[in-house]
Amino acid sequence: MKEIFIKQRFEVPFRYNVYFKRDLFEESNDFLRKLLESEGASRLAVVIDGGLAQAQPDLRSRIDRYFKGSFTAACIEVQGGEAVKNSWEGVEAVLKLVNEQHIDRHSYVIAIGGGAVLDMAGFAAAIAHRGVRHIRIPTTVLSQNDSGVGVKNGINYFGKKNFIGTFAPPNVVINDVTFLETLNDRDWRSGISEAIKVSLLKDPDFFEWIEENVHALNARNADVMEELIYRCAELHVEHISGQGDPFESGSSRPLDFGHWAAHKLEHVTDYTVRHGEAVAMGIALDVCYAGEIGMLSQALTDRIVRLISSLGFAVYHTDLGDENGMNPEIMHGLVEFQEHLGGVLTITLIEDVGKAVDVHEVDHDAYDRSIKKLKNRS
Amino acid sequence: MKEIFIKQRFEVPFRYNVYFKRDLFEESNDFLRKLLESEGASRLAVVIDGGLAQAQPDLRSRIDRYFKGSFTAACIEVQGGEAVKNSWEGVEAVLKLVNEQHIDRHSYVIAIGGGAVLDMAGFAAAIAHRGVRHIRIPTTVLSQNDSGVGVKNGINYFGKKNFIGTFAPPNVVINDVTFLETLNDRDWRSGISEAIKVSLLKDPDFFEWIEENVHALNARNADVMEELIYRCAELHVEHISGQGDPFESGSSRPLDFGHWAAHKLEHVTDYTVRHGEAVAMGIALDVCYAGEIGMLSQALTDRIVRLISSLGFAVYHTDLGDENGMNPEIMHGLVEFQEHLGGVLTITLIEDVGKAVDVHEVDHDAYDRSIKKLKNRS
Ligand SMILES: NC(=O)c1ccc[n+]([C@@H]2O[C@H](COP(=O)([O-])OP(=O)(O)OC[C@H]3O[C@@H](n4cnc5c(N)ncnc54)[C@H](O)[C@@H]3O)[C@@H](O)[C@H]2O)c1
Ligand SMILES: NC(=O)c1ccc[n+]([C@@H]2O[C@H](COP(=O)([O-])OP(=O)(O)OC[C@H]3O[C@@H](n4cnc5c(N)ncnc54)[C@H](O)[C@@H]3O)[C@@H](O)[C@H]2O)c1
Ligand SMILES: [Zn+2]
Ligand SMILES: [Zn+2]
Repeated sequence: MKEIFIKQRFEVPFRYNVYFKRDLFEESNDFLRKLLESEGASRLAVVIDGGLAQAQPDLRSRIDRYFKGSFTAACIEVQGGEAVKNSWEGVEAVLKLVNEQHIDRHSYVIAIGGGAVLDMAGFAAAIAHRGVRHIRIPTTVLSQNDSGVGVKNGINYFGKKNFIGTFAPPNVVINDVTFLETLNDRDWRSGISEAIKVSLLKDPDFFEWIEENVHALNARNADVMEELIYRCAELHVEHISGQGDPFESGSSRPLDFGHWAAHKLEHVTDYTVRHGEAVAMGIALDVCYAGEIGMLSQALTDRIVRLISSLGFAVYHTDLGDENGMNPEIMHGLVEFQEHLGGVLTITLIEDVGKAVDVHEVDHDAYDRSIKKLKNRS
Repeated sequence: MKEIFIKQRFEVPFRYNVYFKRDLFEESNDFLRKLLESEGASRLAVVIDGGLAQAQPDLRSRIDRYFKGSFTAACIEVQGGEAVKNSWEGVEAVLKLVNEQHIDRHSYVIAIGGGAVLDMAGFAAAIAHRGVRHIRIPTTVLSQNDSGVGVKNGINYFGKKNFIGTFAPPNVVINDVTFLETLNDRDWRSGISEAIKVSLLKDPDFFEWIEENVHALNARNADVMEELIYRCAELHVEHISGQGDPFESGSSRPLDFGHWAAHKLEHVTDYTVRHGEAVAMGIALDVCYAGEIGMLSQALTDRIVRLISSLGFAVYHTDLGDENGMNPEIMHGLVEFQEHLGGVLTITLIEDVGKAVDVHEVDHDAYDRSIKKLKNRS
């Protein structure tokens, strides 16, 4: 039977909508109930972020009341924040709920919380019965405009960030800006850096819009934040489907602009620096670097770094390096990034707002100089 | 922002080939080395079925020799058979190997063994780094003609079969019939029932071919077995892509012909009855039932049951029921099957060889009579 083989080729379609609603669990708001009814759902497994539940003590009972009479809903609370991704416990709790609630492939796991809880619960939902239906209700800026609208999930393992996980699009995402009221200032601000990131990569108008709305964002204006989230989520969603590689089988990852240093900084600081904060510094660094190597004009470099600062972000952290240049551990992030992508280093820079460029080698001296400049600015 | 939402729609293409090769790890056979080289692979994590390793004591050193000088290959052995799916241990061992070997998304996890080891290792490979490249080398009849060429993986959890897993096509499958020499007679025979199954559903010529080759199969003729595996694998592969629902989001599962009772029987007998053996009985039962309700002619019913018996399969097990009819626990399998599919009972029967029919309700008396008939035949 030499040279004979069976060929398998097929395509799997994925579809989901990201809705923007307010006061989702008000009894009078039947959006979610109707949506579930129209899909023939009967049993629900609801996973609530413990940090959110603490900040909004009436949420749990509001949710119970909301579903009562319409669906058999069982709720659990899990620890909020990165801790829930650092052990198997959270996944086990969601799997147990799926088992006890007899969630079949036509019932729903609904996860409500920040990016960490959504990543963990999304992973559990993706592996239970090889994938049960899943609704994400993100409750932080970062999860509403970035992590919650994408196709990835995961937890940490062997002390490594997102070591296990899957690509598994949700069935539905619902962004409710009213959840954000109880965020502390750091979490309110943090996700804005992802909006700056996509605006720099893809949308000069959006970049200018952010500049114009610095004051409103700093004043925690919900309408303005909702608009920012909408545009940022939309650009992310379009990016995922528009590149022809939604499950990232290739090695170019333009949305990781500013992220190679950010990932490393989060790690080095033991995740005391939040993802969005690290991304803000990572963008500042790569923008400075693009300026240093003459790819980006000095005026634009300054303008971008100024915007980041004006939103209250730090653009420098001692763990990034000092007057002697970049912290070698951070620099090593480039090697790891390269390994992760399978051998070819590809980092994304910009040569103008809206004009991304992939580069495959870097000038370490220019990075050292960039660190020094950012240190001096701060 | 009422009624505004962001729509996400994309398709993900999946492609893999199922090769038929012999003496895969002979040093002179450079098929696999060339294939890996052409994909730019450097590091390999090789997972070997412990039962296979015991039956073929020189395999491990042959594999080491085969890759030596060309690739950095690290091998581990895991327990063979269902036991490896009953704990997290096997998955943990593969994840650890992936971590220590720095397997990135462009290196390979190669799993060599029966369906159980492939299901476990395939699951680990699918969740490590959200999916690393994966080659399956099935070494049982069932895994070469059915489980190993498909898109599913998984392990058992909470005592439930395949409770966690994913849909994750491999990158390559390689069937080497020479592995089958060391199978015991039960495992040699077991997978043949899946070939009978697909022939009944889809291919009358193949059904007749199996009838004509009973003697050769019973005499363990490798050429004939390779031909059976090829055609059976081909029908499975075509089925997966041909139905427009490779990841089984719908509720019709025609390839599960004979499987509702089989799954239940495996469970009730604590997996002492092998999957293929249970499937043989499940097919006999559903064929008899189709005869009882007048869907299938008596002549054909007899002919099919005779074929199954002539291959050495039992067509009846005391746990299926007795002169009083079907064991209620088995009958409950219908309810569970329905639950699993999300509410609508759909079982597949045949009205002729090659003519599958979905039915949505069953006549319990006719099942009782079928059990009695099968008991009397045996
Ligand atoms: N899947 C992806 O594509 C992707 C992309 C980027 C980031 N991420 C992940 O997202 C995680 C970070 O997410 P995050 O920034 O949302 O932080 P987070 O999930 O860690 O939440 C931050 C804190 O806010 C609390 N919280 C959540 N909602 C609240 C609310 N409405 N009011 C008050 N407190 C609330 C949480 O309990 C937590 O303590 C990281 O694990 C990161 O790896 C995933
Ligand atoms: N993923 C799917 O789509 C799918 C479909 C059907 C079945 N399955 C799964 O497949 C598993 C059954 O697979 P199986 O029938 O291959 O049995 P198995 O994997 O349990 O193997 C049977 C025994 O044979 C040993 N063995 C393997 N290769 C050998 C060889 N060449 N020589 C000697 N011994 C060898 C094993 O160690 C084991 O002890 C079940 O867990 C079932 O759930 C999966
Ligand atoms: Zn990010
Ligand atoms: Zn089967």
